[in-house]
Amino acid sequence: MVERTGLTDEQRLDWLRLIRSENVGARTFRDLVNHFGGARAALEALPGLARRGGAASARICSREEAAAEMQGARARGVHYVALGEPDYPRRLQMIDDAPPLLAIAGNRDVLTRPLIAIVGSRNASAAGIKFADRLARELGAAGYGIVSGLARGIDAAAHRASLPTGTVAVLAGGHTRIYPAEHVDLAEAILPNGLAVSEMPLSWEPRARDFPRRNRLISGLSVGVVIVEAARRSGSLITARMAGEQGREVFAVPGSPLDPRAEGTNGLIKQGATMVTEAADVIAVIEPILGRGLDPPPMEEPEPMNPPERDPGDDERGRIIGLLGPSPCSIDDLVRLSRTSPAIVRTVLLELELAGHIERHGGGLVSLV
Amino acid sequence: MVERTGLTDEQRLDWLRLIRSENVGARTFRDLVNHFGGARAALEALPGLARRGGAASARICSREEAAAEMQGARARGVHYVALGEPDYPRRLQMIDDAPPLLAIAGNRDVLTRPLIAIVGSRNASAAGIKFADRLARELGAAGYGIVSGLARGIDAAAHRASLPTGTVAVLAGGHTRIYPAEHVDLAEAILPNGLAVSEMPLSWEPRARDFPRRNRLISGLSVGVVIVEAARRSGSLITARMAGEQGREVFAVPGSPLDPRAEGTNGLIKQGATMVTEAADVIAVIEPILGRGLDPPPMEEPEPMNPPERDPGDDERGRIIGLLGPSPCSIDDLVRLSRTSPAIVRTVLLELELAGHIERHGGGLVSLV
Repeated sequence: MVERTGLTDEQRLDWLRLIRSENVGARTFRDLVNHFGGARAALEALPGLARRGGAASARICSREEAAAEMQGARARGVHYVALGEPDYPRRLQMIDDAPPLLAIAGNRDVLTRPLIAIVGSRNASAAGIKFADRLARELGAAGYGIVSGLARGIDAAAHRASLPTGTVAVLAGGHTRIYPAEHVDLAEAILPNGLAVSEMPLSWEPRARDFPRRNRLISGLSVGVVIVEAARRSGSLITARMAGEQGREVFAVPGSPLDPRAEGTNGLIKQGATMVTEAADVIAVIEPILGRGLDPPPMEEPEPMNPPERDPGDDERGRIIGLLGPSPCSIDDLVRLSRTSPAIVRTVLLELELAGHIERHGGGLVSLV
Repeated sequence: MVERTGLTDEQRLDWLRLIRSENVGARTFRDLVNHFGGARAALEALPGLARRGGAASARICSREEAAAEMQGARARGVHYVALGEPDYPRRLQMIDDAPPLLAIAGNRDVLTRPLIAIVGSRNASAAGIKFADRLARELGAAGYGIVSGLARGIDAAAHRASLPTGTVAVLAGGHTRIYPAEHVDLAEAILPNGLAVSEMPLSWEPRARDFPRRNRLISGLSVGVVIVEAARRSGSLITARMAGEQGREVFAVPGSPLDPRAEGTNGLIKQGATMVTEAADVIAVIEPILGRGLDPPPMEEPEPMNPPERDPGDDERGRIIGLLGPSPCSIDDLVRLSRTSPAIVRTVLLELELAGHIERHGGGLVSLV
């Protein structure tokens, strides 16, 4: 990453174009900007990269499209905060797939407070909803902002209970496509003291796969995540797993072994999550962490500018592709086994990624799609 | 302790007389037998000890009373097993206040199997009862005997579910005073495959304080104790505490934070009890323990026979009494601070105990009553 203090309007537009272009995710964005020294240069390189990766064409977000989104957003009070800018949520910067641009609406003051996520079942029990309400109220009163996903059930209860103290709704779609639609009023009510945030285009209709993707932001914004009710294999458990991977504290509320809505939470406790029966259980774990402050600089140092001296040769590209498969493998291994340079491997991976042929995982792993 | 292989009928009668005498508990029994070399000699010394301890008189169980209890027991199929005899439950022998004589009725085969206690609220929820039933059934099928306290609610559910595989009811009163009376049939139904055990006189009507006392036998018999539902400050938590003190595994079943019957169990889990949502959670912890076998010889080596050369002098007795107070203090400290011998201190403590003036705690601590 290069930009550090704040983007110019022109740069912000380039960032938006780049992240809105086909097959460019948060990690690819970072690689592209590091590789080419900036979003503008990356945009110029995109068509060639995608073509060499095997794509017939790669849809690049035009200047006009990006400008229209910006304008639409501004008209609705939605602002784009870029990774590295002072307003960007500090803890979120630390995850390795932090969104380059975050579209936010509402009162940013809530970001100055430590955030705790409260999530759980959509079809929650009355007891689960009551407990989420109580917990959010007590944590709010103790100075914490409450993060959740604006879903029915536990999420909505957590948001409602923390409207006066400040709550953050993380959207799976765009700001003008609140999901579920019945929560449009709730999303509005959040704004005076809290925030709605999204990494998706303004009018993006969320698809099933956007929810797990969104869940990484819920945990990424937060110091800890409390799961109130969760069935086995539910979305809330994905948030818990992501929280663990991001080094966030994981809390779970117990329930009867005969209640299917407690299977997930009881399982988390067995795996080491902190059991929560009252707000004090959360605060006892979180407070010492806040005392330690945040870890090292949130953004990696800009890599030395070393655009590859030449494009990869077909034989090199062939060797690298031959090494890839559906199981994730490390980029280091690819460099070693392909007997090429790191720069060549990175370039080929970018090509393949932009052509939609590979997927990036955490920890520098990639696999064929 | 001296007897090791089995008592003669005459010795068994002496043991029964001694443990049924006033102010003689399990620990005092052990001290008296060690001190005087046997129950008969202890019985002879009792009146003098109690008088010197300040008692106007000490009720000593007569030969006739003891013989009558024995005869009444035999007529009802109740047998007395003495600490150190082969039939005495092995794990129970290891607790420091194991009853010298255990009155047992039923099928002793269940004692050859590892035992797990399942206890909980008397006013249990339907879910709690269902879970206790399921757990007892599954653990029974896995080869474990189920121990409980014959109370209403969780206890009764655990017993009923393990009638076919073998269950042990630990009574707070005597064998002919089943409490609650509505469980007389249940107590009968236990005997073909299981046991009822009691340390109390045959027709003892249990008082409130007999229940916590009884709870130490529930945990003492068992490799581990599962608490299914327990309110804050309930009797089941006493069993859990005793289990911990005795080095037994403590398990607890979680519940909603809004359910008062889960307050105790959730609290136990926070304190380190193993969370149980299925039988496998118990078995996973217990199996490795069984593999290790039992720890060192269950009974302490008989102490060298060193009856005090002389009775304590009044000044020595006065110094020792002066050092005692309502807070427990160690016998070692008494020896040191009174500048007398261990034998003198032990004798004075026996005197005071038999006169009902002191209480013994675990870990060699005593206090004034």
